[in-house]
Amino acid sequence: MTLLEQYRAVRKASEAICQPLQKEDYVVQPIVDVSPPKWHLGHTTWFWEAFVLIPHHPGYKPCNPDYNYVFNSYYETIGARVVRTDRGNLSRPSVDEIYSYRQYVDEAMLRLIADGPGEQLEQIIVLGLNHEQQHQELLFTDIKYILGHNPLFPAWSDRDIDVVPSAGAGSNGFVSVPAGLYEIGYEGDGFCFDNELSRHKVYLEGFQVAATPVTNEEYLEFIEAGGYQNFVWWHAEGWDWVKKNAISSPMYWHLIDGRWHQYTMAGLRPLDGKQLLSHISYYEAVAYAAWKGCRLPTEFEWEASAGKFGWGQRWEWTESAYLPYPGFKKAEGAIGEYNGKFMVSQMVLRGASVATPAGHSRKSYRNFFQPYLRWQFTGIRIAK
Amino acid sequence: MTLLEQYRAVRKASEAICQPLQKEDYVVQPIVDVSPPKWHLGHTTWFWEAFVLIPHHPGYKPCNPDYNYVFNSYYETIGARVVRTDRGNLSRPSVDEIYSYRQYVDEAMLRLIADGPGEQLEQIIVLGLNHEQQHQELLFTDIKYILGHNPLFPAWSDRDIDVVPSAGAGSNGFVSVPAGLYEIGYEGDGFCFDNELSRHKVYLEGFQVAATPVTNEEYLEFIEAGGYQNFVWWHAEGWDWVKKNAISSPMYWHLIDGRWHQYTMAGLRPLDGKQLLSHISYYEAVAYAAWKGCRLPTEFEWEASAGKFGWGQRWEWTESAYLPYPGFKKAEGAIGEYNGKFMVSQMVLRGASVATPAGHSRKSYRNFFQPYLRWQFTGIRIAK
Amino acid sequence: MTLLEQYRAVRKASEAICQPLQKEDYVVQPIVDVSPPKWHLGHTTWFWEAFVLIPHHPGYKPCNPDYNYVFNSYYETIGARVVRTDRGNLSRPSVDEIYSYRQYVDEAMLRLIADGPGEQLEQIIVLGLNHEQQHQELLFTDIKYILGHNPLFPAWSDRDIDVVPSAGAGSNGFVSVPAGLYEIGYEGDGFCFDNELSRHKVYLEGFQVAATPVTNEEYLEFIEAGGYQNFVWWHAEGWDWVKKNAISSPMYWHLIDGRWHQYTMAGLRPLDGKQLLSHISYYEAVAYAAWKGCRLPTEFEWEASAGKFGWGQRWEWTESAYLPYPGFKKAEGAIGEYNGKFMVSQMVLRGASVATPAGHSRKSYRNFFQPYLRWQFTGIRIAK
Amino acid sequence: MTLLEQYRAVRKASEAICQPLQKEDYVVQPIVDVSPPKWHLGHTTWFWEAFVLIPHHPGYKPCNPDYNYVFNSYYETIGARVVRTDRGNLSRPSVDEIYSYRQYVDEAMLRLIADGPGEQLEQIIVLGLNHEQQHQELLFTDIKYILGHNPLFPAWSDRDIDVVPSAGAGSNGFVSVPAGLYEIGYEGDGFCFDNELSRHKVYLEGFQVAATPVTNEEYLEFIEAGGYQNFVWWHAEGWDWVKKNAISSPMYWHLIDGRWHQYTMAGLRPLDGKQLLSHISYYEAVAYAAWKGCRLPTEFEWEASAGKFGWGQRWEWTESAYLPYPGFKKAEGAIGEYNGKFMVSQMVLRGASVATPAGHSRKSYRNFFQPYLRWQFTGIRIAK
Repeated sequence: MTLLEQYRAVRKASEAICQPLQKEDYVVQPIVDVSPPKWHLGHTTWFWEAFVLIPHHPGYKPCNPDYNYVFNSYYETIGARVVRTDRGNLSRPSVDEIYSYRQYVDEAMLRLIADGPGEQLEQIIVLGLNHEQQHQELLFTDIKYILGHNPLFPAWSDRDIDVVPSAGAGSNGFVSVPAGLYEIGYEGDGFCFDNELSRHKVYLEGFQVAATPVTNEEYLEFIEAGGYQNFVWWHAEGWDWVKKNAISSPMYWHLIDGRWHQYTMAGLRPLDGKQLLSHISYYEAVAYAAWKGCRLPTEFEWEASAGKFGWGQRWEWTESAYLPYPGFKKAEGAIGEYNGKFMVSQMVLRGASVATPAGHSRKSYRNFFQPYLRWQFTGIRIAK
Repeated sequence: MTLLEQYRAVRKASEAICQPLQKEDYVVQPIVDVSPPKWHLGHTTWFWEAFVLIPHHPGYKPCNPDYNYVFNSYYETIGARVVRTDRGNLSRPSVDEIYSYRQYVDEAMLRLIADGPGEQLEQIIVLGLNHEQQHQELLFTDIKYILGHNPLFPAWSDRDIDVVPSAGAGSNGFVSVPAGLYEIGYEGDGFCFDNELSRHKVYLEGFQVAATPVTNEEYLEFIEAGGYQNFVWWHAEGWDWVKKNAISSPMYWHLIDGRWHQYTMAGLRPLDGKQLLSHISYYEAVAYAAWKGCRLPTEFEWEASAGKFGWGQRWEWTESAYLPYPGFKKAEGAIGEYNGKFMVSQMVLRGASVATPAGHSRKSYRNFFQPYLRWQFTGIRIAK
Repeated sequence: MTLLEQYRAVRKASEAICQPLQKEDYVVQPIVDVSPPKWHLGHTTWFWEAFVLIPHHPGYKPCNPDYNYVFNSYYETIGARVVRTDRGNLSRPSVDEIYSYRQYVDEAMLRLIADGPGEQLEQIIVLGLNHEQQHQELLFTDIKYILGHNPLFPAWSDRDIDVVPSAGAGSNGFVSVPAGLYEIGYEGDGFCFDNELSRHKVYLEGFQVAATPVTNEEYLEFIEAGGYQNFVWWHAEGWDWVKKNAISSPMYWHLIDGRWHQYTMAGLRPLDGKQLLSHISYYEAVAYAAWKGCRLPTEFEWEASAGKFGWGQRWEWTESAYLPYPGFKKAEGAIGEYNGKFMVSQMVLRGASVATPAGHSRKSYRNFFQPYLRWQFTGIRIAK
Repeated sequence: MTLLEQYRAVRKASEAICQPLQKEDYVVQPIVDVSPPKWHLGHTTWFWEAFVLIPHHPGYKPCNPDYNYVFNSYYETIGARVVRTDRGNLSRPSVDEIYSYRQYVDEAMLRLIADGPGEQLEQIIVLGLNHEQQHQELLFTDIKYILGHNPLFPAWSDRDIDVVPSAGAGSNGFVSVPAGLYEIGYEGDGFCFDNELSRHKVYLEGFQVAATPVTNEEYLEFIEAGGYQNFVWWHAEGWDWVKKNAISSPMYWHLIDGRWHQYTMAGLRPLDGKQLLSHISYYEAVAYAAWKGCRLPTEFEWEASAGKFGWGQRWEWTESAYLPYPGFKKAEGAIGEYNGKFMVSQMVLRGASVATPAGHSRKSYRNFFQPYLRWQFTGIRIAK
């Protein structure tokens, strides 16, 4: 695909995710981590203005000067912005105005791309496409949160995207990986994020990693064995989280009249034990692994063995904190704020999920979240 | 008007207030005290179901059994409900569904009223109409908050309802009232709330009360005299409120390029000093009065003198806490939760405001809010 | 007693209350409302410096210039101060240093009083004595809180000061008071606080007030009838308080092996049903009265009838908010901060308690606290 | 030294640290992380009861059965305990009672050690000695916090233990370390903590590490260059911390009349630029390093190069999160709670400090704290 085709495809994909929504669904922010869908549509559009059109396209006139304040996410370099907790308090700009904003910016972007932006600007455009794909995943997870925490449990659509059978048919088989020096980090000349570099050697002891992620019925055994009532499996911080929030099952699980159900993007359904577990915090992942007499793989073990097992339906928590690789360098200016400033107090997830746009992830890709978060499509692969 | 005509008129008035809104405006709850307009439309409809149709209309089938959970405000008698802070997290039921809900309930109510509900049920229906009128005022103030705290400052409409010139043309004249025994509380055989009863005698010392409420320019003098920087005018609790929230002017005032502006329901406007002050907390009202060497009237003084001055544009803070009158009796059942359970930690406001439906208030009417709240159309009348 | 003798007696009484303490007991502040005993001893001493010695005794040299910062309670006029929540974080000045401070100030005060301070300064000294007596009551209640919330339940002493049998032997008799105009407020030429003035007329409907306050066994009936589980008796704010704090009995009550106990200043004891109930919040007082089909008296009813019943063992919650009387005037300067700035969001208590110094209270005395507080010796007298 | 001599020496050392304190200093807990000195003295004594005497010494009678509740720190296995934030609310047991408790337990321990406890129990006793040494460091840092946050700034003693000149005389020299495989983790047959095991290989790229830690004057340059005002040097989380807490210098620095001072354990002193910087959060360490165009070493780089530079005056933040080593195993029972359950959301510090008991640390020692904490003697060594 040409860059122009890619741009068109990515922009269209964001809107396709929102197509089944009612206007009201675009507006709310039930928790700080979940942004309103209309904010995602606006923010991804603002990104093109702020990083491409305004700095690199002389004569470009911003669609609305107030949008910089409304749609900046966290770029200190670019100025003041709506505090994150207020995103759901803004009824305006309206959904229609944001779609108009998208069209306004797309016209300018398509002209700019058609004119041949030059290699350096092309790199920023590719970053922008990857950025918008990341927000496509967030659109899925945020819509699921908004609808799945509504007492009426409305479905997003009847497309059954988030319930995925285990390829392993319940097996617990492990793949063995020998000790040795492994190369870690992105290799190749395509796009990657700065946090995947530089490529470097890591020595790993021999280890074994599960061929398939944990299923619902495997996790149910942990619940039924009293896993949420026994502190020994948990970090102290995780145990506090369990007690303070009265956690007793994965997010979106509901025990209704003695039977487990699960909210899916197609609505509330009886829990299917053969499906892949999802919506698990790091604390729960670690507790489950400990209960099995295992542990989580490190991100290096994961990357070194990713060729030996199937992945891509669930983001898999690793036992690695999100930290810079040797030789990591931030870009100059606002783009330098993209990844580096978050490299503390978060854990790395590897793989991809059902909500990740095709082709967006790769085995060197580093996703990261605080250990208590579980509204993403997060699962568990154990190691030992 | 017949009861049937009243019912039609009141129900229509609620919807008329929302007519200028975009769908997104119906959804948000920027602070806990401000409910989403669609919640008001649903809650006032639920009230008819919960207090009239379900208990008194055998065979009535509720529109949607989940709505009891979604639209119950605070009636413990009637069961579980969405926590108040979550109202703005609910994108569903949608605006269209809520208008359908209104129509469904209206059809049942109109049949019931046409059939002659009997005296006792008529009383509950009249209470329901007064209840819906109270929410009409809240619709105005909540819409103003939602739009007035949006960085784009959209107007509700071009109808200039909330900016009202002072009848007193800036005068500071006082009305004198002699000492004596006064009768306080509702008198007559029309509708009143339980908190206006029983009518009882109160002895008042002689006092003077301002003929007109405070104007913007009068309050501006207090600001310019450093009123927000000098603790001596303030309650300890009010002074903490000023400092913690960095308060330096009434709500909706903005100093832009050295000139005061005011957000009104018709948009952002230069401040007009001759208009009546509004959006003032009890703390500010007390501080202003103290700075003038005066005080606020008690609710008894207010009621005893209300025939001697014009009122009705601003709710006027009084120096009276919201407490039961001698002989106050709660009704049986859920309706008993209407007023009595709030009789602690709130202050009484008297009068009415530009947002109060015509005919809704009267001189014995007792409005009440926590002392820090100021999103209502609240003003100041001083006394001495 | 001469003023000199009074001064000596009051100062000595403060120290006598602390005599049974170990040094460690002087230091802690388990909740914001409970100050460390050594802070009380220092603050009451600072009061003499700040209000008498420094302004009125030329040449007086403060004991330690830092103490103004450490021991100022809330006087904005007098400058910066330790934030209230930090009082329990200060190990210095030590207990010994504070006793030295007391001695240093007492010597100067005794000289000043002996020299004849003049009428105006005498008035401030009398205020200072009343101030110190108020802190003597707080010393009792704060010591009780500190020791009574320690898992070892140490006794303050074996003096059984806080457990008081009901004079009414469990009777429920009511005293009737006819309707009429009553004079309210301090009358006489002795000392009173500014909040007891001016004396004014209040019209009261006829009412009945209980001859004796509620006993433990009467309150136990309320508990056993499910009083803490039924919202109907409670204010909405009180019901939230019950649920949020999991309240199910008065403060200092403990159900141990199925039997109720009560922490007293002489240690943990089996609950004696015939004793006067104590350590009750306003919310609980109102709920109990409602459950009995009664209410609390207003502060005006209380004062008008106080000659007809015994009082003085428990502070009695009234159904009156703490507000200024007609003609209330603040003093000039820092002393003006004594009472007036607290006249919002608090409820009035009348009477006195076992911890009130003899002669300190009177029937026009207005004590006041926020409705959720119950570490004072607070009880219930019902009315109807 | 024999085990008996070691036991005596360690126990005595804890008390020696407290010898200069006044009783009041033993009691307070100004922030949750700082425990009262008397709690440390009691907790370290309880440790012997809970882990040695009660399980391994039949017939041992605990000193006071309530102390298990009072002095358990975080061992879920061992039962209920005072919530951490309440430690400073407990005036009892008194300081004298705790010293008696120490004597009571010491007598039993000395008998037990003299009797020859056997190899397995000896290992637990050695762990207990190391545990008490860790609390000796905390005694220093907590006493410094208690006295250093008192407005009177009392000294702990005139021993100048925490102000240490830089060995590097201000030099910025770097030590070079070649790439290669390094062995990490404890080696030998002495005592080590479980978190130092198992020893394993780590591959490191070549790097350079500063020969000496950062001095006060070097850090002052960062301050004067606006380091606390420029977000670019900070993690997003660190920048929020700076703004929310209004941080503008290391803990214990005070700008008085235009001149920097520093609270030391010997009192308030003018800042000496040649001394080693201390009391720095991880966020500040990272920001400083970034401003110098450098970074922090990882814990593996630190350990691999620790033979090439002097260390031991300041705990040095590393760019490594606190995570289990390959092959890490928790012990059975309560001792298994010692380290493993904290392996999330903390950063590793290496080295030792002026407050670390001699012989307690080693180059494989892993200290760990949350990134915002800075009341320990923490400093910076940069790398590149």
